[in-house]
Amino acid sequence: MLNKHAALDLTFQALADPARRSMLAQLTRGPTSVSRLAQPLEMSLPGVMQHLAVLESSGLVRSQKIGRVRTFRLEPRALSLAEQWINHRRIEWERHFDRLGEYLETLTRKGETHGDGE
Amino acid sequence: MLNKHAALDLTFQALADPARRSMLAQLTRGPTSVSRLAQPLEMSLPGVMQHLAVLESSGLVRSQKIGRVRTFRLEPRALSLAEQWINHRRIEWERHFDRLGEYLETLTRKGETHGDGE
Repeated sequence: MLNKHAALDLTFQALADPARRSMLAQLTRGPTSVSRLAQPLEMSLPGVMQHLAVLESSGLVRSQKIGRVRTFRLEPRALSLAEQWINHRRIEWERHFDRLGEYLETLTRKGETHGDGE
Repeated sequence: MLNKHAALDLTFQALADPARRSMLAQLTRGPTSVSRLAQPLEMSLPGVMQHLAVLESSGLVRSQKIGRVRTFRLEPRALSLAEQWINHRRIEWERHFDRLGEYLETLTRKGETHGDGE
């Protein structure tokens, strides 16, 4: 079991490639064989296999071989962890701006009060 | 202006490192100087600058030099694009499972109907 940091490293690394993102998009519609995953990509089969290996080692996909056909399926957990990480950063950032907005409002109100007194 | 694919490549690549993620987490709490960003990291200043260059070229952060102090701030747009990409994949995946669930339910109901007739 990878620790959370290492898991996020591998997941974001795996997501940093358009061919791998295209494969993941295809896999959201259900388990898919290697040959069908390769079809829309202008790439050699070893190239496709290499990308799938990166995806599998990141935990974003899992594969199963039945007879001579290897089928890949999406593992939503790794995707969720990556989504959560970004989501938490965005919420934290928005919170900071809310606090900043409140602070600026207080300053404006104080300014108005001082203005009234003058 | 980078195209969307290239922008996502750079963003996910930038996110695939714990030191860069830690810097981004710090920047969600507001603009920060290089020296303050470097403080919690056990890393040389050139190392820190290299990570910040990766973050800046991905569009996740922007920097500004006032006098001798360079300050970095988070650019939420790149983070949002990455979040959206993952979010859309998850929604697509959940939709697939909803449809699969409905299909299995139909099969079960059909089975029950056939069962009744026997």
